[in-house]
Amino acid sequence: MIIQIDKNCTVNQLVDINAALENIGFKGTKINTQFGQYIIAIGKREFDIRKIGRMQGIVDIHRVSDDFKLVSSKWKVGKTKIKIGTDNWVGDGHFQIMAGPCSIESEAQIDSTIAHLLANNVTIMRGGVYKPRSSPYSFRGLGQEGLKIFYKKCKEHNIKIITEVMQVSQIEPMHDYVDIFQVGARNSQNFNLLDELGKVDKPVLLKRGISGTIEELLQAAEYIFSNGNEKIMLCERGIRTFEGAYRNTMDLNAISILKEKTHLPVIADPSHGIGIRRFVPQIALASILAGADGLIVEVHENPEKAFSDGQQTLSYKEAEALYKNINATLELRKNLL
Amino acid sequence: MIIQIDKNCTVNQLVDINAALENIGFKGTKINTQFGQYIIAIGKREFDIRKIGRMQGIVDIHRVSDDFKLVSSKWKVGKTKIKIGTDNWVGDGHFQIMAGPCSIESEAQIDSTIAHLLANNVTIMRGGVYKPRSSPYSFRGLGQEGLKIFYKKCKEHNIKIITEVMQVSQIEPMHDYVDIFQVGARNSQNFNLLDELGKVDKPVLLKRGISGTIEELLQAAEYIFSNGNEKIMLCERGIRTFEGAYRNTMDLNAISILKEKTHLPVIADPSHGIGIRRFVPQIALASILAGADGLIVEVHENPEKAFSDGQQTLSYKEAEALYKNINATLELRKNLL
Amino acid sequence: MIIQIDKNCTVNQLVDINAALENIGFKGTKINTQFGQYIIAIGKREFDIRKIGRMQGIVDIHRVSDDFKLVSSKWKVGKTKIKIGTDNWVGDGHFQIMAGPCSIESEAQIDSTIAHLLANNVTIMRGGVYKPRSSPYSFRGLGQEGLKIFYKKCKEHNIKIITEVMQVSQIEPMHDYVDIFQVGARNSQNFNLLDELGKVDKPVLLKRGISGTIEELLQAAEYIFSNGNEKIMLCERGIRTFEGAYRNTMDLNAISILKEKTHLPVIADPSHGIGIRRFVPQIALASILAGADGLIVEVHENPEKAFSDGQQTLSYKEAEALYKNINATLELRKNLL
Amino acid sequence: MIIQIDKNCTVNQLVDINAALENIGFKGTKINTQFGQYIIAIGKREFDIRKIGRMQGIVDIHRVSDDFKLVSSKWKVGKTKIKIGTDNWVGDGHFQIMAGPCSIESEAQIDSTIAHLLANNVTIMRGGVYKPRSSPYSFRGLGQEGLKIFYKKCKEHNIKIITEVMQVSQIEPMHDYVDIFQVGARNSQNFNLLDELGKVDKPVLLKRGISGTIEELLQAAEYIFSNGNEKIMLCERGIRTFEGAYRNTMDLNAISILKEKTHLPVIADPSHGIGIRRFVPQIALASILAGADGLIVEVHENPEKAFSDGQQTLSYKEAEALYKNINATLELRKNLL
Repeated sequence: MIIQIDKNCTVNQLVDINAALENIGFKGTKINTQFGQYIIAIGKREFDIRKIGRMQGIVDIHRVSDDFKLVSSKWKVGKTKIKIGTDNWVGDGHFQIMAGPCSIESEAQIDSTIAHLLANNVTIMRGGVYKPRSSPYSFRGLGQEGLKIFYKKCKEHNIKIITEVMQVSQIEPMHDYVDIFQVGARNSQNFNLLDELGKVDKPVLLKRGISGTIEELLQAAEYIFSNGNEKIMLCERGIRTFEGAYRNTMDLNAISILKEKTHLPVIADPSHGIGIRRFVPQIALASILAGADGLIVEVHENPEKAFSDGQQTLSYKEAEALYKNINATLELRKNLL
Repeated sequence: MIIQIDKNCTVNQLVDINAALENIGFKGTKINTQFGQYIIAIGKREFDIRKIGRMQGIVDIHRVSDDFKLVSSKWKVGKTKIKIGTDNWVGDGHFQIMAGPCSIESEAQIDSTIAHLLANNVTIMRGGVYKPRSSPYSFRGLGQEGLKIFYKKCKEHNIKIITEVMQVSQIEPMHDYVDIFQVGARNSQNFNLLDELGKVDKPVLLKRGISGTIEELLQAAEYIFSNGNEKIMLCERGIRTFEGAYRNTMDLNAISILKEKTHLPVIADPSHGIGIRRFVPQIALASILAGADGLIVEVHENPEKAFSDGQQTLSYKEAEALYKNINATLELRKNLL
Repeated sequence: MIIQIDKNCTVNQLVDINAALENIGFKGTKINTQFGQYIIAIGKREFDIRKIGRMQGIVDIHRVSDDFKLVSSKWKVGKTKIKIGTDNWVGDGHFQIMAGPCSIESEAQIDSTIAHLLANNVTIMRGGVYKPRSSPYSFRGLGQEGLKIFYKKCKEHNIKIITEVMQVSQIEPMHDYVDIFQVGARNSQNFNLLDELGKVDKPVLLKRGISGTIEELLQAAEYIFSNGNEKIMLCERGIRTFEGAYRNTMDLNAISILKEKTHLPVIADPSHGIGIRRFVPQIALASILAGADGLIVEVHENPEKAFSDGQQTLSYKEAEALYKNINATLELRKNLL
Repeated sequence: MIIQIDKNCTVNQLVDINAALENIGFKGTKINTQFGQYIIAIGKREFDIRKIGRMQGIVDIHRVSDDFKLVSSKWKVGKTKIKIGTDNWVGDGHFQIMAGPCSIESEAQIDSTIAHLLANNVTIMRGGVYKPRSSPYSFRGLGQEGLKIFYKKCKEHNIKIITEVMQVSQIEPMHDYVDIFQVGARNSQNFNLLDELGKVDKPVLLKRGISGTIEELLQAAEYIFSNGNEKIMLCERGIRTFEGAYRNTMDLNAISILKEKTHLPVIADPSHGIGIRRFVPQIALASILAGADGLIVEVHENPEKAFSDGQQTLSYKEAEALYKNINATLELRKNLL
């Protein structure tokens, strides 16, 4: 059960509420987010809600049968929209494209990508400076110094950036140079990282684990939310299956189901979702019809020379065609019965 | 290597060709289909094609590096279109909807479905009379008698029918009462059934196995084709994965990849692909953007009372909205860059 | 619910029983097997068993909450043992090795294998004459003629044979030349084949589907049993997963769980279970500790030259070491606490 | 290629070696571990080893075709044994049992477990103080304070402890209270954590990811090793598949294959590997025949009351039977042909 607490709730009222909860066999966890305060109470399924419902200090109470609570659409029926920068939104009807290279490689590459984005009215640039790599001997990104340059150049053109954070100790140094923190598939259940990102006032894009269930993804989001950060986007990026004809199995079912189960925006990553460049556009558009609120796509001036993920990265020309088709597909989606 | 044989090729010429093949270490298999005759020659990857290329009786030779040959788009670059009845096509730009109940249940149900299809210009009705069921104690379909009624009623309204054939001995009795034979996921590698369907002059819709790879699906189609039947549709219907939030994982990647690897039409089955009624329409439309040449969808007057698969079956009203959205989505697809 | 019917039950008594079942909302299916007659009654979970229990013609009644009934150990607590030939058993403490090549290739190969088996006191030979192959252009076995020679030669030395049946029409011609019918993984849910094998008075070894659940395997066995054949062995042969370092993932958990859920013998197939020759022996022995009642193993005089599956086939020398270790492992298993 | 560097290698010699590597198109990474110094050189597969082989400062050179290098048995043929405490070893013929509760719950529980271990000559106790939990509202362990008590009590009885570390910042405070650091399945590709554990002089037990490939597990170990820590144990704990009849699919194939591919010890975790208490012992013993160098098993005085994982935790009595059977199984393994 989620109990929404009044802003002016007194300490004594809180004590009373907790006592009442204990009385009916529930354990309450107090949550403060950017936008409100709640008590998440876990206990038996059957209880008499009237014993709590009219207490002072309480705005509202919801039963939530899901194991995830605050991210559940059983609690919050309306869709969440997240502010990116000053005038941009994602979710609740606002669609965003996040495009850029897998890895930030050089200043020239950043400049070139920015020019490409500006020419196409894309306002969020993706690009990794900390790269999780299977082998310790692979290129692992330009790190904090790369991030600073990446951020500075984008800021000059009012481009917002999204980049992966891999561990708790990176959060603080990265904080002032990041618009959206990305949590990668391998860290999807790195609960310490999720805890700490819950204390940050920046949006987080949380990728589904490579074999993470939809339920686990929502529970992971609950970690962030229950630590205080409501600004979460979920990302479907393909799952691991027996099929070897492509990199991952893009799970469009998951997008449809997430859109029902949660009020949070859902982003599709078709680049990892299929992993083969020439199929990325159609999987991207299909994701929109499945319900995606945005796309994160790998784009590079010269994919063959990209430091990583070149085989799934679009050229500028391919990306431009995609952007145009996104608008047409969004238009269609609006008009569907 | 695929050697296309001239219609007027003599026996002596064939003997010479086979001798020449043997000479370069190849083993030839002679194939006669509805539309041509070929020799599939399996052997070493490296050889001098000129030693065969100019022999008499040969129209054309193609190297095909795939393990499947005749169904490969490396051999046949143009897309295959299949005639359904006298004036209907599927494939190569022709899109078809196949709609109807999971199981044929009664005459009244057939009548009702036909009326629904006619009102919506759908010309192919699906419906099972032989039902593969996990438990031997479940309803297993109305069988041959049900089929005859199903076919007769549809024929009166020029509706074509598709229905599942489960074993070799059913092919002959079913033959005159079927427009398209369907091979279910569980029989996707029932090679004897595929062999025999290769000898029939009716289209076959071949479903991907529940954990069949794309390669295996194409090899299964090769069985049908190499026995003489070129009229094959492939069907993506979801695969088995670790995720339990829905019935199967609809694999849209597979649709995109199949459309590249083969010249055969690819049909999407969103009903089994997600298995939850309210999500079927969006997965259906997404499949179109991934490249599908048609849809097979479960529809029932009263899904809650369907003998089987009710939870993934659309009502008439839901189906009607879907049909309209299909047209709009096809329109969009045509205009994509 | 399973109702065991008295041998002398009259038709009138049967009518009464069925009426009583209908009365409490159950649907009965009459089953005659080699060893008894039963009514499988499917209906609501809750009912008053006394309303049926004391009727004439009934020996015994069991509630079985599993979806599979006759193969469930909730019905039959004691383990089933199956007679192979005149003096051999498998199950209920009797362990059997079935060894031989993947494919029967020649008379000389049969002779050589028989000599190997005789020298090692192995009394069942495996060998395929009908081979399911992914590609239609691969070797598909020596067929019925090969089977006759295979059987005749083994009979001379009192070796029993197990070989795969792929379709219904093969059952009759194969019947007199087979001691155990094998159903392959691809036919694990070929329900027509299972139905017909249920009418045969020869043991059947039923392999788990490549991605078949334990529940599905038991339901498939229920098909055979409910058609009249109680002589069923189940076989774990590895499942399809994401891992590509070996052929299949041998599922020893499944052996342990099957041994609890069913009274039928469970056979392990380590050759397909890992698919790499040098690891077959240790997986074979591990399977015994997990509870297997027997092993089916691929053995060939010269694995490198085998027509199929050579990479997972033991040489005679490797097989001999394995046989000796099997005995030691069985000895250990007997003495475990 | 792995180049083992002489202890007395001079800086100039190193410079020369690196220059020579660069000359043949290789990139070298210098590695210092507890036991030696190496250069891992990554480059083209084909090269003339004589151009490097006789240079001064080099002890030895190995070509390693695997993508993992220092953990590969292609480099180090002999098996690694790891010292646990002063007189205990694991690997290279030394077998260890690590037993204890999922979570450390109280002093009384520690005392009780120690008594159980002492009575059975088990010298390593497992027990979590930081618990990764799917839900943020679940019990997350007693933390650092719990660890101190856990360690102190065990030290009094010369019991060594293994416990999970979840993030980099825990390493330092945990360091003096831990004998073996455990990395959980969810952190199997937490590369920052692996990097830092590579700088610690304590053994690390690295669990396979829930859908991690064998190759990924070895690459993860390479992270630890290449940062300087050679004391690594790998742990198979079951993988995620489609099967729902148990918790995870214990992959015994992986144990056999790991034992060939790497010189590191391999530990089996049958508790998570099947997840059902009554089957744990047989999967444990089967793991030994598959090649395991040790077992990590969940044991609790009263499994039904355990804070977590009770359904897969053995009682003391069950554990005692298992321990005795382990010895008998090891005895058998020694005598296998």
